[in-house]
Amino acid sequence: MACDKDCGKKCVGCLFDYETPVMLVISSKRVGAVFRLIQMLIIAYVIVYECWIQQNYQETDSVVSSVSTKVKGTAVTNTSVLGVHVWDVAEYIIPPQGENSFFVLTNMIVTPAQMQSRCPEVPGPTTVCLSDSDCRSGYSNVRGSGVQTGLCVNYSASVKTCEVLSWCPLENDTEIPEPALLEAAEDFTVLIKNSIHYPKFKFRKQNILPHINSTYLKNCTFNRKTDPECPIFRMGDMLEEAGEDFRNMAVKGGAMGILLDWTCDLDMKEQLCVPKYTFSRLDNKNSESDAAHGYNFRYAKYFKNSENTETRTLVKAYGIRFDVIVFGKAGKFSTVQAIIHIGATLSFLSLVNAVCDWFVLNFMEKKNYYKKHKFIHLDKMEDTDNSIGSTSYGTQ
Amino acid sequence: MACDKDCGKKCVGCLFDYETPVMLVISSKRVGAVFRLIQMLIIAYVIVYECWIQQNYQETDSVVSSVSTKVKGTAVTNTSVLGVHVWDVAEYIIPPQGENSFFVLTNMIVTPAQMQSRCPEVPGPTTVCLSDSDCRSGYSNVRGSGVQTGLCVNYSASVKTCEVLSWCPLENDTEIPEPALLEAAEDFTVLIKNSIHYPKFKFRKQNILPHINSTYLKNCTFNRKTDPECPIFRMGDMLEEAGEDFRNMAVKGGAMGILLDWTCDLDMKEQLCVPKYTFSRLDNKNSESDAAHGYNFRYAKYFKNSENTETRTLVKAYGIRFDVIVFGKAGKFSTVQAIIHIGATLSFLSLVNAVCDWFVLNFMEKKNYYKKHKFIHLDKMEDTDNSIGSTSYGTQ
Amino acid sequence: MACDKDCGKKCVGCLFDYETPVMLVISSKRVGAVFRLIQMLIIAYVIVYECWIQQNYQETDSVVSSVSTKVKGTAVTNTSVLGVHVWDVAEYIIPPQGENSFFVLTNMIVTPAQMQSRCPEVPGPTTVCLSDSDCRSGYSNVRGSGVQTGLCVNYSASVKTCEVLSWCPLENDTEIPEPALLEAAEDFTVLIKNSIHYPKFKFRKQNILPHINSTYLKNCTFNRKTDPECPIFRMGDMLEEAGEDFRNMAVKGGAMGILLDWTCDLDMKEQLCVPKYTFSRLDNKNSESDAAHGYNFRYAKYFKNSENTETRTLVKAYGIRFDVIVFGKAGKFSTVQAIIHIGATLSFLSLVNAVCDWFVLNFMEKKNYYKKHKFIHLDKMEDTDNSIGSTSYGTQ
Repeated sequence: MACDKDCGKKCVGCLFDYETPVMLVISSKRVGAVFRLIQMLIIAYVIVYECWIQQNYQETDSVVSSVSTKVKGTAVTNTSVLGVHVWDVAEYIIPPQGENSFFVLTNMIVTPAQMQSRCPEVPGPTTVCLSDSDCRSGYSNVRGSGVQTGLCVNYSASVKTCEVLSWCPLENDTEIPEPALLEAAEDFTVLIKNSIHYPKFKFRKQNILPHINSTYLKNCTFNRKTDPECPIFRMGDMLEEAGEDFRNMAVKGGAMGILLDWTCDLDMKEQLCVPKYTFSRLDNKNSESDAAHGYNFRYAKYFKNSENTETRTLVKAYGIRFDVIVFGKAGKFSTVQAIIHIGATLSFLSLVNAVCDWFVLNFMEKKNYYKKHKFIHLDKMEDTDNSIGSTSYGTQ
Repeated sequence: MACDKDCGKKCVGCLFDYETPVMLVISSKRVGAVFRLIQMLIIAYVIVYECWIQQNYQETDSVVSSVSTKVKGTAVTNTSVLGVHVWDVAEYIIPPQGENSFFVLTNMIVTPAQMQSRCPEVPGPTTVCLSDSDCRSGYSNVRGSGVQTGLCVNYSASVKTCEVLSWCPLENDTEIPEPALLEAAEDFTVLIKNSIHYPKFKFRKQNILPHINSTYLKNCTFNRKTDPECPIFRMGDMLEEAGEDFRNMAVKGGAMGILLDWTCDLDMKEQLCVPKYTFSRLDNKNSESDAAHGYNFRYAKYFKNSENTETRTLVKAYGIRFDVIVFGKAGKFSTVQAIIHIGATLSFLSLVNAVCDWFVLNFMEKKNYYKKHKFIHLDKMEDTDNSIGSTSYGTQ
Repeated sequence: MACDKDCGKKCVGCLFDYETPVMLVISSKRVGAVFRLIQMLIIAYVIVYECWIQQNYQETDSVVSSVSTKVKGTAVTNTSVLGVHVWDVAEYIIPPQGENSFFVLTNMIVTPAQMQSRCPEVPGPTTVCLSDSDCRSGYSNVRGSGVQTGLCVNYSASVKTCEVLSWCPLENDTEIPEPALLEAAEDFTVLIKNSIHYPKFKFRKQNILPHINSTYLKNCTFNRKTDPECPIFRMGDMLEEAGEDFRNMAVKGGAMGILLDWTCDLDMKEQLCVPKYTFSRLDNKNSESDAAHGYNFRYAKYFKNSENTETRTLVKAYGIRFDVIVFGKAGKFSTVQAIIHIGATLSFLSLVNAVCDWFVLNFMEKKNYYKKHKFIHLDKMEDTDNSIGSTSYGTQ
């Protein structure tokens, strides 16, 4: 750059020309103060925000995790349909695998001894009929219970509905048992096993901390104050922490989140890297539309009777689905990261001059004097170079 | 910096020395234009790209979501094996829980009354035999159906195969029913309930919008034009939107994705934050290898016959797996973010001078004149300082 | 800026004033060398780190994937409870759907013919009793097997325990079969079908590569050396690669991860974008507490006996859960990205001068001479401008 076209071989020397701007030094407390202040602010920002809060000097990795859950507890129900019945894990946990998402049965409508046959539809706007002409043989309403046979038969003494081919007798889910049949589920406990892995840092840990022995594990229950490290959670407690009422939620069901936060600063001691447990309701409880309220699904147990024809017990299961959600971000010092981030924010310093110049040249009473020395106006000396070149500093 | 070694106590004053570069002002339309132009470009870039498109002034959070699904519909099949059979949700949805991934049975091969016993293998390259010597007792081929007994027995009048200990009779899945048995599944509907949560912004919402009442919900079906907010989707419609043919896919099965995009700008009105529904096939339909084509699995229903021996009905289930995939990113104005990003991009402005200098000093006819004033060559005045120091501006 | 207050209309012209700093050119090999060196370092950093390693010139997208799995294999067990029994996929894979997470049964404790009735608790610290007074009618211990009837009955000749209402007889899981009953699972294979999608780049691919034909697929087994592209994995091989012993793990179960890494540089040929398979144990094998060791759950098969009362076969299933974890990040050249990143790092160059100045003005023997010319001290010429303005360079 600093080399004329006609300098030929000398150009190699240019490589070693070092250019540095000529600086005007203004010794003014006022300006200096502003200048230093802004510099301080930026350096403070770099230290406080970039380093301390954001820890941008670290490289991060996100968690890889494996969860397994095991629910414990039994409940007894006494219903007309089932009589006295004891419910254990194998029966009320669906699916049974104990993965990170499990459903706890809390309420149900049981329809036993269903068989493939014909029966009158449950009365409703689309199913009530007066004569066979109101029913279309072979038609199956997507919101109905089966395929219409075309007949209009008595549902009750007063009501006639279209006959359908289906699993009969049909389920009647008009009223939900209240209080919930398995309210006792409030006392059930779930053991959560969670192993996490930060691949980039070869860091492995599990929520069952090394110092927890099996005897403690057999008897403890999580409690934020007394047992914050016990990985066994009582259903009722979890809902309470989430601000929900178990007895209330048990009736129509819902979805709960068990959140494990594994955010760790691996520059610290490993012992400090422990999961934070939080609980929150995932579905929307105050839903305006009943149709969208609660959590339930239907499943069936299939049997064959003595005549070898298939029968089934249909269960409309209401309950609480628990999702174990593991998340987190680990950070560790990284030279590269540090250089990039610190450097990037230092380049802010270049902005300081802009601000100060603006201040100096517009708001100081000596501003014109400063301008005169800061700026060298070329346009004022078109004619000859040498003479004016020098006097420019004098006269302007 | 601007302070000599021997300035001793004066040095404190240095703190308030403000240094600002001496500038050469070139009043030339040509240069000025280039200069301003580049400045404009960068500022435009900051505004358009950084702010408008990327919205880098926002801090973002990613969605936490909870999904539950409920399928409705019934279908009737009439097969030699099962006779007339009505299929309802409890039977054709696997698993029944109604989580974010559910499988709809559309086609099947049923093998009833299987029992632990011995029977000839299904003929195949590895199973056909001529004499017992071709079969190894106790050997179980990983791709076979059971454990060989060592005998070679008649599969049919013409073919002999190794006898195996297994659930007999063995399933014969050589031909798949076509058209699919549960083609009626095309009319099934699924209600998708999705509650989302942006923790950082304490923002909660569900796909069933507040103004949707339950009566509407009972009768509506999603339609991009007429009912874009109805969360009830007809199977056939979803596949159609994804450009698939239901009747075709129903035969061998496949995997579909129901995507909910919750990307929201929370600086806007909350009402504007609604999910966008899209549908796409997840598996590869035009798979070159049959083995990898479609979607199917086997499950069994277990019974005990009058002699109290276990029998089962094996079902090879073909069908469509629907995965509800919720994603999204919410943004909200953040002062810190704004400062960082705007500042960072402003530091680009420092590059403008580099470009302009290069232009001015190489492509303007007055370039040598400009150079003369821009650069002060020290090397040309090694001998004495005082004199040359001043004249340097004059002579060079 | 370079325009005086009183320049009125001329100010428009100011728009075209171009300001460029006046530079001091120091032709010194020493300084020049340092200067160029630092420049080189930064440019090298940009090229090597930003471009080559980090590929920051690319815009990235993360993978959307769909996985389905199919396990093959049969095993035979001969136990007192079940007699000779052949296990096939429909029986040992739970759940059967073949999703991205599946459980392979390797060991079990079977309790057949359970019925709702009364039986003595399994002896334990909380269940052993001497008289009825030790048992509370209606009380159900969360870690117990049922609801106490209030009676204290003989469990064995020597031990008395509280009687409970439950599924009787109770399971006795004190000793686990060793070696595992389904050790043969070591030879089972799983076919993994994985279709991935990079939405931003409209890029689709599946792990079953185009050139793989179905005949190969029918017979191959994954092997890092001989068959690195075969998507069929032998259980034993996977555990071996993960450094685990199958026979050992089969007894108490565990969790395995099958990781598919789809990281791709889409600027390269598409053929180069293939999944990398790795296997690792997800749960913590050397767990200090037995309670947290292995992987097991209970499920039941329900029957109705001739008297139409419900009976069930309870299975405590030990086994290996395989999670197929698909991850990856695709990158493609993007002009915008390139500009941002290169530009951002170039702004580092502004830091070079700071460093060099510091070097020049403090460590060169001619430093005072340089300072004299670099800095123009205004404070030394308060009185008159013209005269001193020029001589200032000479005298100071």
